[in-house]
Amino acid sequence: MTNIILCGGSGTRLWPLSRTLMPKQFVKLFEGESLFQKTVERNQKACDSQFIVSNTEQYFLAVDQIEEHNDDHSKLNIQHLTFLLEPVGRNTAPAIALACLALDPEETVLVTPSDHLIKDEVAYLEAVERAKALAVQGSLVTFGITPQYPETGFGYIEAEGEDVRSFREKPDAQTAQSYLDAGNYYWNSGMFCFKAGTFLDELQSYAPEIFEASVKAYGQAKKDDMIRISHEDMMAIPEDSIDYAVMEQSSRVKVVPSDIAWSDLGSFDALYEELPQDSNGNASSSLNSEIITQQASNNLILSEKLVAAIDVDDLLIVDTADALLVSQKGSSQKVKEVVKKLKERNSELPNIHVTAHRPWGTYTILDESNGYKVKRIVVKPGKRLSLQKHFHRSEHWIVVSGTATVTRGNKEYLVRANESTYIPMGEIHRLENVGKIDLVMIEAQVGEYVGEDDIVRLADDFKRMEN
Amino acid sequence: MTNIILCGGSGTRLWPLSRTLMPKQFVKLFEGESLFQKTVERNQKACDSQFIVSNTEQYFLAVDQIEEHNDDHSKLNIQHLTFLLEPVGRNTAPAIALACLALDPEETVLVTPSDHLIKDEVAYLEAVERAKALAVQGSLVTFGITPQYPETGFGYIEAEGEDVRSFREKPDAQTAQSYLDAGNYYWNSGMFCFKAGTFLDELQSYAPEIFEASVKAYGQAKKDDMIRISHEDMMAIPEDSIDYAVMEQSSRVKVVPSDIAWSDLGSFDALYEELPQDSNGNASSSLNSEIITQQASNNLILSEKLVAAIDVDDLLIVDTADALLVSQKGSSQKVKEVVKKLKERNSELPNIHVTAHRPWGTYTILDESNGYKVKRIVVKPGKRLSLQKHFHRSEHWIVVSGTATVTRGNKEYLVRANESTYIPMGEIHRLENVGKIDLVMIEAQVGEYVGEDDIVRLADDFKRMEN
Repeated sequence: MTNIILCGGSGTRLWPLSRTLMPKQFVKLFEGESLFQKTVERNQKACDSQFIVSNTEQYFLAVDQIEEHNDDHSKLNIQHLTFLLEPVGRNTAPAIALACLALDPEETVLVTPSDHLIKDEVAYLEAVERAKALAVQGSLVTFGITPQYPETGFGYIEAEGEDVRSFREKPDAQTAQSYLDAGNYYWNSGMFCFKAGTFLDELQSYAPEIFEASVKAYGQAKKDDMIRISHEDMMAIPEDSIDYAVMEQSSRVKVVPSDIAWSDLGSFDALYEELPQDSNGNASSSLNSEIITQQASNNLILSEKLVAAIDVDDLLIVDTADALLVSQKGSSQKVKEVVKKLKERNSELPNIHVTAHRPWGTYTILDESNGYKVKRIVVKPGKRLSLQKHFHRSEHWIVVSGTATVTRGNKEYLVRANESTYIPMGEIHRLENVGKIDLVMIEAQVGEYVGEDDIVRLADDFKRMEN
Repeated sequence: MTNIILCGGSGTRLWPLSRTLMPKQFVKLFEGESLFQKTVERNQKACDSQFIVSNTEQYFLAVDQIEEHNDDHSKLNIQHLTFLLEPVGRNTAPAIALACLALDPEETVLVTPSDHLIKDEVAYLEAVERAKALAVQGSLVTFGITPQYPETGFGYIEAEGEDVRSFREKPDAQTAQSYLDAGNYYWNSGMFCFKAGTFLDELQSYAPEIFEASVKAYGQAKKDDMIRISHEDMMAIPEDSIDYAVMEQSSRVKVVPSDIAWSDLGSFDALYEELPQDSNGNASSSLNSEIITQQASNNLILSEKLVAAIDVDDLLIVDTADALLVSQKGSSQKVKEVVKKLKERNSELPNIHVTAHRPWGTYTILDESNGYKVKRIVVKPGKRLSLQKHFHRSEHWIVVSGTATVTRGNKEYLVRANESTYIPMGEIHRLENVGKIDLVMIEAQVGEYVGEDDIVRLADDFKRMEN
């Protein structure tokens, strides 16, 4: 069985913790692991290969986290792992269609989001086994989560045994309660199991435009170490969810009731419920620094620096290097309104953290002012930045850990820990870590303009010249 | 008349905004000015000379803010300004005694704290004039603030006209209300006016031990460009407030009722009342970055980065680079308990901000990790750091603005903007700004140990070798 992992996400619901370039599945919320890492690991217990559908920007983050996990724990097998890169998201139906087109029609697939928490793994794997049995017989299987409370933010599935009677839109509070009382209504989890061919057949029947455009896009995709769909072809596929396009239309749908301690962590309120709490009900994560509370209870407190909370209850306090959110618990759905306001103001805060992930490692902006910018740059072993030049800035590099191999003009030389070098404005240069440990470097850029877009790439291991 | 400005303060009440090394009088809370700057400026309208009693650590901060104010606005006159440095605070009676000993006994003095807000300057100057008239006649004059509400955190003065009937300790709520209703009770403001000789006479009568020890300490003080009391002599003076030691004993005390829109800003609750508020009652300061509120009202929000507040009311949200406080309004007195806990844990957070003020300028810690530390260093024109060396670190300096004059071993050379230099471990060196604008430099320290105490000073303009 192949696990198709859908890896999109806008990064708005858990802002400022998540950003467009750091959506929630990649934030290390639980015991130093991300939901993406947990998803990959969990599904390797049921599947022998994995197929990750990701956007171009997040691809390297995903590879990073898989490699890191692999190095640390030898838990992950990246041999049987394929990436399909979407230049732009078109919702779940096209993403799943493109992945299924790459597989044998008889291959059973388990489709999962990458940003959900599943705490009862035994029950989960049992549900997957049951779904697989139904899928092999030609069904489109959805996983119906046993509801724990009358949630109004999810769609519901009305079931009769394993048959689906109806799909229901997000209910009002009273209706949600009646679903809970009835006992045969389940949360629609966004996880599916079917044969690739079954899904494509049903897609062709009920959403032929998506099917045709997906076939064309896949046919024209670049297929080397990964599958890359072109922007034009992707935009030509109508945008729709698998629920609307197929599941709510098809007569071959089954549901596997699943009581698996599931959460979509779709808000800070949901996150609060899943994080460890102290004796006063204050929840924090493994990312936290010290917390001092004085008569404060039932708060979510996320911050990498010290937080003191006095006489406050039921707050969501989410602090990051460049933005702080303080919200009443229960109001976390309004976070997206804040993000909308920021986008209207052309703020970069919804998009990126002070630490940015790049294919070769990370950079963190330490200081920025008129005429200069200071970064900490970490280059992973075996990686190098693009061969590049800048028109408006010179760069001073000081290696504080590891060894840098520097190309400057026609020369190549080493810069060791506690050594420095200088790249004059306009000079072609490249930074590489051929060593075995991280290269950590302080870069001071000096120039009239120190924006990230002052870069001309002449060669790049990561094909970023083509984007 | 000489204005004695008392410049102590522990920095705990407005933590994390204030710190031991940045007490509240130096924080620029109002229109980019500090309470200290406002105090100096205000009292120059009533006094022809000023006498600042400060501790050693805060002296340079005080000089900085006076010079800065002077440069920017030409408002301040620093010609007639004397500093008396206490190596350790012994409360107000010794501080005022030492200052008075330096003055002609017939000189009238106006004693003021440096961390109070007075918004009605016209009424204030009138009150000072009246106090001066009484002081010349031999009275010890205290300023009684017309109470605005039944505050339980202040002592009260019971008056009969300008005569003092009694001093009252901090009352309970009911008693405070009865004082307010009675109409002849005033808040004890900590401001005084008297002839230097009158005060010393009364001190000799009612607190002879403080008097004798102060005379001895002053007699043995170093008197050059400032007056420096030795640590031993200072410790020999009994610790006491002017209220207990003199004002509550003497029969020569008068009170000038003062309706001057006064606040001691002794808590974030008090600060909230004095800062500008938006239409929803959310208060912020001129230090703030952007604030986005969604149904949030009556909060105090202080932060240099973006803050989003959703559905929260009556909170005190105080964010700094290395510590965040979130408190219910009305609970700000508990801040000192948080500071106490931090001190018990030997945290540096009660003491210092990431930006530290030095006699020559400032440094800001941008990054710190195993084996390295990165700072932004700003050296003011005409200033230089001590001639120094370090045993455990090398230093890389990159000038991003201004020009550095660097001494390294026997050499002296210039480092211009966009140039760098290197100071090897153990090498004697000095950094100087002989230019006309700030020197801004990025320093990367590399070494096994990068603590501030790895410094050997061989010469210093600021006599810090003697401390």
